[in-house]
Amino acid sequence: MSLADGPLSAPAPAAPLKVALAMAPDVAARIFPPSRLAALGEGLELLSPEPLSSFDTPLAQALLPQVEVLLTGWGAPLLTEEVLARAPKLRFALHAAGSVKEHITDAVWDRGIQVSTAAEANSIPVAEYTLAMILLANKCVLQLASQLQDGRAAMDPEALFPGMGNFGKTVGLVGASRIGRRVIELLRPFDVTVLVADPFLSPAGAAGLGVELVELDELVAAADVVSVHAPDLPETHHLLNEARIEAMRPGATFINTARGALVDQAALARRIGRGDLYAVLDVTTPWVLDAGDPLYGHPNVVLTPHIAGSLGVELGRLASYALQEARRAAAGLPLRYPVTARELARSA
Amino acid sequence: MSLADGPLSAPAPAAPLKVALAMAPDVAARIFPPSRLAALGEGLELLSPEPLSSFDTPLAQALLPQVEVLLTGWGAPLLTEEVLARAPKLRFALHAAGSVKEHITDAVWDRGIQVSTAAEANSIPVAEYTLAMILLANKCVLQLASQLQDGRAAMDPEALFPGMGNFGKTVGLVGASRIGRRVIELLRPFDVTVLVADPFLSPAGAAGLGVELVELDELVAAADVVSVHAPDLPETHHLLNEARIEAMRPGATFINTARGALVDQAALARRIGRGDLYAVLDVTTPWVLDAGDPLYGHPNVVLTPHIAGSLGVELGRLASYALQEARRAAAGLPLRYPVTARELARSA
Repeated sequence: MSLADGPLSAPAPAAPLKVALAMAPDVAARIFPPSRLAALGEGLELLSPEPLSSFDTPLAQALLPQVEVLLTGWGAPLLTEEVLARAPKLRFALHAAGSVKEHITDAVWDRGIQVSTAAEANSIPVAEYTLAMILLANKCVLQLASQLQDGRAAMDPEALFPGMGNFGKTVGLVGASRIGRRVIELLRPFDVTVLVADPFLSPAGAAGLGVELVELDELVAAADVVSVHAPDLPETHHLLNEARIEAMRPGATFINTARGALVDQAALARRIGRGDLYAVLDVTTPWVLDAGDPLYGHPNVVLTPHIAGSLGVELGRLASYALQEARRAAAGLPLRYPVTARELARSA
Repeated sequence: MSLADGPLSAPAPAAPLKVALAMAPDVAARIFPPSRLAALGEGLELLSPEPLSSFDTPLAQALLPQVEVLLTGWGAPLLTEEVLARAPKLRFALHAAGSVKEHITDAVWDRGIQVSTAAEANSIPVAEYTLAMILLANKCVLQLASQLQDGRAAMDPEALFPGMGNFGKTVGLVGASRIGRRVIELLRPFDVTVLVADPFLSPAGAAGLGVELVELDELVAAADVVSVHAPDLPETHHLLNEARIEAMRPGATFINTARGALVDQAALARRIGRGDLYAVLDVTTPWVLDAGDPLYGHPNVVLTPHIAGSLGVELGRLASYALQEARRAAAGLPLRYPVTARELARSA
């Protein structure tokens, strides 16, 4: 029946896109366990479940000539011109994590390879952590828990913290980054005023977000909670400098889920030591504080071991975002979270 | 000019409604300070800034015959038939707090006096506290903060809590009360499944709220976080009994912002002692635990001194809700948060 081969028949399905993983082996084991790789989806063919943590291995020699979609993750080796010359079919580098700076080079843009990021997925837990800490900080909840623990007796919370509560408080967000914007979104149901300082945010943009755009100096002086959501760049080194830390309101809380380098930590420790500022720090300089650091054990400080980002079950969300991008690529749809060379230059 | 008195002239403004306060003096000082009473609004006339904390005083003798709107608060004396007989003009009893059970009697309903509550306003901080604690509990944030504090060294959070994170978790809410519903609303932006157990919630009602209606026994066994939002009634005494506490998942978190009586606390303490359940308790039995209680200082327990409800700046929200009701009364509009005799019987 020649008709079956004619124009009325369904088009022959395109060959599936050939997929490989590039990331550290322990990262692959956590983000792309066999169960997840078994369900890559239509139009995608996994070349090997073993991740490339280097492009100088026999496995890399075998996969690079064929690979069309690279699922990247933490520990992905650098995609240099030399590597890309050996991967002539590579069209997509889809990251199952936030920043692509560690593995993307100009050669990737030069070759027109499409890059995407799961930074959107990665921003979710950071915003959740931040929201929870803002709500508790304004209500002085953790301070009161700690004092109840120490006192083991009836106490008068309002005598200790007359201004406790979120109603009418001011939250200052340093940076309308992806995470900053998600925090703005999550704060919408609450009776708080949101100030934002960000040199890239326009007044119209701020109005669209329903926030008040202010200078950073004004923000730190006006906010009950200051939370940092700016990238770690040379221009943002010690963005929260001594003057700005000193300008924060007595009783205010400073939250940092971004990077330690954004803050003059010595100045922060001095202000904390005076007892009229609180801090919630998921990041510090150095990454792990020395055992003798005064920030440990200070009643005004909550220290967490860099956990605001994706961990545990949240890795499944990173995988699902990257795989959704791969499925869009296979279906010929535009990527949902593309990264461009220009954006990369000003992001974390 | 007789025309000015005729039908074309504006109607004479109604006489303002005469307002008095009934609550404990310290409560009045906190909720209705002079600044707030100075701006009662059009159509309202304050008879005295001094609150009635008893109806047997000379001030009460003077005010009761005139009062039309009573703004009530914590410590309001009981509105008995005898009292109401001396307040023949009273038409509204507007509460600047949650439950009206302590001061409203059947005589109020018999006389057709309209009652309203600021329970809606009061539910806001409780839901905020609950949301924050849910988000932190699923991510094991406070446990990790405490371990970092103790260890003062690099740590591997995922090795300690492989399932950490909110993504895909199950939150079980015991009671689709006012507070329970607000928690449901606040949980909407997050990637969690919400189970609700409530004998008064219909399947259609649950579908409307976007939650899954389950039996309490199923809820406690399935949820990663169990949070109680049920009223304290004879029928709910030890609703969380030993069997239900034992049925909670290893690693789950139990949150109680309602009342200690809802929980078999001895059974809870035994399960906590075994180390595989976490608890966030804003209420306990007794109200203040004895200094030797094992719940103090246990690493799996966050104890707070009954602070989830309105305190500090949140009292301003209670005042504003009650005053808005008074302004609606003055404008002849229906109350926004009326309480009926029937509702009162099944609420906290």
